Amino acid sequence: MSNFKTLADISKIIKEMPVKDIEAEAKAIAHQNQLTKPPGALGILEELAVFLSSWQRTTKPSLKTVQALVFAGNHGICAQGVNPFPQDVTKQMVENFKAGGAAINQLCEVSGADLNIVPLSLDDPTADFTEEEAMSELDLCEAIEIGARSVNLNSDLILLGEMGIGNSTISSALAASVFGGSVERWVGAGTGSDQKGQAHKAAIIELGIKKHGLRNNLSALLAFGGREQAAICGAILAAREASIPVLLDGFICTAAAAPLFGTSKNSLDHCLFGHLSAEPGHRLLLEAMGKSAILDLNMRLGEGTGAALALSILKGAIACHNNMATFESAGISSS
Amino acid sequence: MSNFKTLADISKIIKEMPVKDIEAEAKAIAHQNQLTKPPGALGILEELAVFLSSWQRTTKPSLKTVQALVFAGNHGICAQGVNPFPQDVTKQMVENFKAGGAAINQLCEVSGADLNIVPLSLDDPTADFTEEEAMSELDLCEAIEIGARSVNLNSDLILLGEMGIGNSTISSALAASVFGGSVERWVGAGTGSDQKGQAHKAAIIELGIKKHGLRNNLSALLAFGGREQAAICGAILAAREASIPVLLDGFICTAAAAPLFGTSKNSLDHCLFGHLSAEPGHRLLLEAMGKSAILDLNMRLGEGTGAALALSILKGAIACHNNMATFESAGISSS
Repeated sequence: MSNFKTLADISKIIKEMPVKDIEAEAKAIAHQNQLTKPPGALGILEELAVFLSSWQRTTKPSLKTVQALVFAGNHGICAQGVNPFPQDVTKQMVENFKAGGAAINQLCEVSGADLNIVPLSLDDPTADFTEEEAMSELDLCEAIEIGARSVNLNSDLILLGEMGIGNSTISSALAASVFGGSVERWVGAGTGSDQKGQAHKAAIIELGIKKHGLRNNLSALLAFGGREQAAICGAILAAREASIPVLLDGFICTAAAAPLFGTSKNSLDHCLFGHLSAEPGHRLLLEAMGKSAILDLNMRLGEGTGAALALSILKGAIACHNNMATFESAGISSS
Repeated sequence: MSNFKTLADISKIIKEMPVKDIEAEAKAIAHQNQLTKPPGALGILEELAVFLSSWQRTTKPSLKTVQALVFAGNHGICAQGVNPFPQDVTKQMVENFKAGGAAINQLCEVSGADLNIVPLSLDDPTADFTEEEAMSELDLCEAIEIGARSVNLNSDLILLGEMGIGNSTISSALAASVFGGSVERWVGAGTGSDQKGQAHKAAIIELGIKKHGLRNNLSALLAFGGREQAAICGAILAAREASIPVLLDGFICTAAAAPLFGTSKNSLDHCLFGHLSAEPGHRLLLEAMGKSAILDLNMRLGEGTGAALALSILKGAIACHNNMATFESAGISSS
């Protein structure tokens, strides 16, 4: 694995990223068209199987070893009262993850993913971005590197989630910074802000953008943070270097990846988007990136829960791809 | 289980159907609001867990024993050239199901459902509905009864699917008969009809409706058939008598249930709709019934494949419902 010690290292990684295997992709498409179903009748499942083939560089993709990485961070912006829950909840939820009591524990159990929790300096929140940059380059690169080193390179797929009280504000700020437009359209309820709370979040983000300017690359993470967002970027890049496909959760994960997309539009080509969050900014963010989500279940919990549910769909997709009979093998008349 | 020997028997069953357990439902909602997540953050998963509680009459629903029933039938309407595949394919696909080579086999394996295939008189297709009624009352009730008797009453959930070359035409005819409007809006590609083929399907259905009139109850099945649609109705009713929730697949299953809905609007209250089919009539049909689908994966295969994928979502929903910590048990600060 490359070094992730400086933003210059990371730029180098982004420039040298492997691309998908178009030969494996073509073979997977040809294989799909021989299976005992009308061509295209499995819809998105066919696309997912082909996608996994193209990144795993094989016509028979596997999802035996799936690592779910949940990064947790704390945010100085909470001093501005952007979240109805106290910041202690981040650490309490990390304990809940470790004890097996959270939603993500149950959903990883159902879909068959190995859950790893990675708390990032929870006692040392990033700085309040209305006052200064959220992180130094050293802190940012350290968090990116922790994310990268957390990836189990023997995995067939990396599933990414997060926890961090205040991080819907960070996400809206990152989205607004990378894609611009009015701040309000990127702001939603998060863990439960009412209309007034949302207007406050938007005003705080406006202050941050006024202070740091619009930034559309990794320097957006310097300005707005946080550590779990940086770790998500690191994990995405480490997976890409190893040509391992990635399954992202909802709004927070997508926003975390926005600075990568801003740096290079093809940097997320190996990523799938598990679900469309109820957080209104998510739809806009996916549209801005030309991506679409697998599920739409009106969820807005984070933790990786939407991605863990989407994993079951991916498992169905490759079970069909790998194990269905062909028209020829089953002796079935074609049209 | 009641008798399903005459349409009069079946009317009696429909009049005496049990309703959901509102006490279990209220307790399930209260339980959801204590779990370690912002209330409502699991979106549709919360609704699904509450739904299963209300029909299984328990605050801790189970999906340990799920029966997937796939009914297969053949249709005299194929004489009118409504399908690009020969009718032999129905039997060939039944053999494929039995040999484990179809999509539904793989998806039941992934989501943990016990698959039972029920072919219905495949060598004796129903009559061509442009010439006469598709079935006699005797044949209809026999198919309904086979469907009802196929239900394993020890199941936690019944998942319903179908196979039958020509049955997208049957489904469009049933939808048009029960809900009216222009025939074209109920007609789609099925297994692969082009524009011309679809216009032909619509014209054939027009002929059928001219012959038999619009029928909005079980007599629609007499007119248009087929046996697998009747069996689906029987299974839905038998499950309801036992208060077992049902998970329907896509367009064909929903259209099969339309004559029940036409008979009594609350007859499908215990049914979930697994996925929104790419078949354009499905969205209209769900809207006409005031229902919504769990998944939207651009699929149009049938067999129960959309329902089998949705089963994984249901399993996620009850895993969260049954196993998550509460704010109190996990010692987490609430807002």
